[in-house]
Amino acid sequence: MTREADWIEFLRRRFPAGPGVRIGIGDDAAVLRASGGRDLVVTTDLLIEGQHFLRRSHLPRAVGWKALARSLSDCAAMGARPRWALVALAFPVSTPAIWVKEFFEGVGLLARRFGVSVAGGDLSAAAQIVADVQVIGEVPRGRAVLRSGARPGDVVVVSGTLGMSGLSHLCHLRNVLSADEVVIRASRAYYLPEPRVELSLALAHRCRPTAMIDISDGLSTDLSHICKASGVGARVFQDSIPAVAVPAPIARRLCTTGLQLALDAGEDYELLFTLPKAQAKRLPRTLAGVPLTPIGEITRGRRVVLVNEAGRGRRLPPRGWDPFRRS
Amino acid sequence: MTREADWIEFLRRRFPAGPGVRIGIGDDAAVLRASGGRDLVVTTDLLIEGQHFLRRSHLPRAVGWKALARSLSDCAAMGARPRWALVALAFPVSTPAIWVKEFFEGVGLLARRFGVSVAGGDLSAAAQIVADVQVIGEVPRGRAVLRSGARPGDVVVVSGTLGMSGLSHLCHLRNVLSADEVVIRASRAYYLPEPRVELSLALAHRCRPTAMIDISDGLSTDLSHICKASGVGARVFQDSIPAVAVPAPIARRLCTTGLQLALDAGEDYELLFTLPKAQAKRLPRTLAGVPLTPIGEITRGRRVVLVNEAGRGRRLPPRGWDPFRRS
Repeated sequence: MTREADWIEFLRRRFPAGPGVRIGIGDDAAVLRASGGRDLVVTTDLLIEGQHFLRRSHLPRAVGWKALARSLSDCAAMGARPRWALVALAFPVSTPAIWVKEFFEGVGLLARRFGVSVAGGDLSAAAQIVADVQVIGEVPRGRAVLRSGARPGDVVVVSGTLGMSGLSHLCHLRNVLSADEVVIRASRAYYLPEPRVELSLALAHRCRPTAMIDISDGLSTDLSHICKASGVGARVFQDSIPAVAVPAPIARRLCTTGLQLALDAGEDYELLFTLPKAQAKRLPRTLAGVPLTPIGEITRGRRVVLVNEAGRGRRLPPRGWDPFRRS
Repeated sequence: MTREADWIEFLRRRFPAGPGVRIGIGDDAAVLRASGGRDLVVTTDLLIEGQHFLRRSHLPRAVGWKALARSLSDCAAMGARPRWALVALAFPVSTPAIWVKEFFEGVGLLARRFGVSVAGGDLSAAAQIVADVQVIGEVPRGRAVLRSGARPGDVVVVSGTLGMSGLSHLCHLRNVLSADEVVIRASRAYYLPEPRVELSLALAHRCRPTAMIDISDGLSTDLSHICKASGVGARVFQDSIPAVAVPAPIARRLCTTGLQLALDAGEDYELLFTLPKAQAKRLPRTLAGVPLTPIGEITRGRRVVLVNEAGRGRRLPPRGWDPFRRS
């Protein structure tokens, strides 16, 4: 397929208009009918060859999946139900058509899972592959969960296991091959991350997090985002962090630990949230199939402190992912 | 500024939350409150270095302006009022900070003009500059103007002058410098195109176009889009097309004509629409400060025909811009 029109026809058939889509792919813009009495939650996320994925190591299906997963995860971090997506994709004219088709297959697989309709987008040629996915979600009026609502005394909770994606990424970078089950599961977390859409909706239904963010940059950085936005500090207990259990030989080869990966590697797409102590007590250990772990508490002041096994605290600097850091 | 957090702080100050923005830049997603009883019109447009602009010839302010203008133009082509924008920008880490600031200055200038709030976006590093701008607009329920509503007998109308942008682009490519007034105006149309937002709203208020599109790919291609979507043909009178009056010496040097540029060059961001003959008769010559020119009529069948001065018709193939054509 060498004409834009062919691609649009392909996409139109691949993504027929879903619920709330009055006009989907093929016109100048999509026309959507939102539900009444709700706020819109909109987010956009770039996924760029060489920055976020490599063509030689990522299957195109995984690239499409991840492109959508990142925006769905942002939407989940607001407590919103994702409804529609727009997918903009730029790629070199030399890109095989099957790569592009498989990319959209990945988008479609994840979209179907959460009942999200791909309603439009854009296509262009470029020197490298760049995807930008917008997700539009809905949340009851005034009920979006912001980063800025954490209060001293609130409990800090995290979903799932942290550092999985970082472990897989590092194994790949350092050419460490392993059939260890943890590494295999980590590879799934890295290539096909699960945005916590259902968990987010279940949380909104059951309790009301005071602040929430998704862990895309690493626990150290994303917790600092909540603290900064809320004007508070936090104390996190090292032993409580549900860090990936890196097998010792692999940890040695990678010169890292599960804790380090949990704190700074990012791309976990787990939810990090705070809620009042009374509510935290009633929180189940697992919600929507995802483990929930209290890892610390919000404090007065602005310091984010990591408390070790011996009960000693040290400042936890935000050392997670920053696309513009020159290191 | 070498940290993402600094950029977000800069953008947060540059684009404070506007009307209907409950939560703007700085959280995981933006939270918007749409008006009741309206449909949402959403569109996304990529603008890519090397494809749509060159860093050596485009001021960053013009790049930001154009990135937003393209999406606003798509929104206008649906008859919708643009309300919010999300701006995703990827750039090499070596890009001077002033380039990025000026880019957003260009976005801001155009956004303010139409009361559009920049509510969020994304930033990333990349090998080349890529902007992707989403615009979310509103239109009274069921009143979006589609490409698919043109009916035989409808009059085809176009706004403004076509081929201006193409003239400037070609002068640039062929290194033709000229102080001719047409070339200077063309250069403004190329670098700082005017999306026809007010015209679109005035049209919706005054008559009701049966079909509408913005001319981004060229009249030949965009008219074929309307005809294909509506299952009709069209007859366009060459003499009626408001083509740019290219000064003869420049036309010779560029080996082109105003008509050719109007048909195939694109990037005009004018509106092309159809409406029933009775309504066309009452259409003023100028609306919202923009000239309106009837150029032909919708016909049965699927052929798009260009009728010359002598009254002879020939098939008009869609020869406008296609990012994937290898020519």
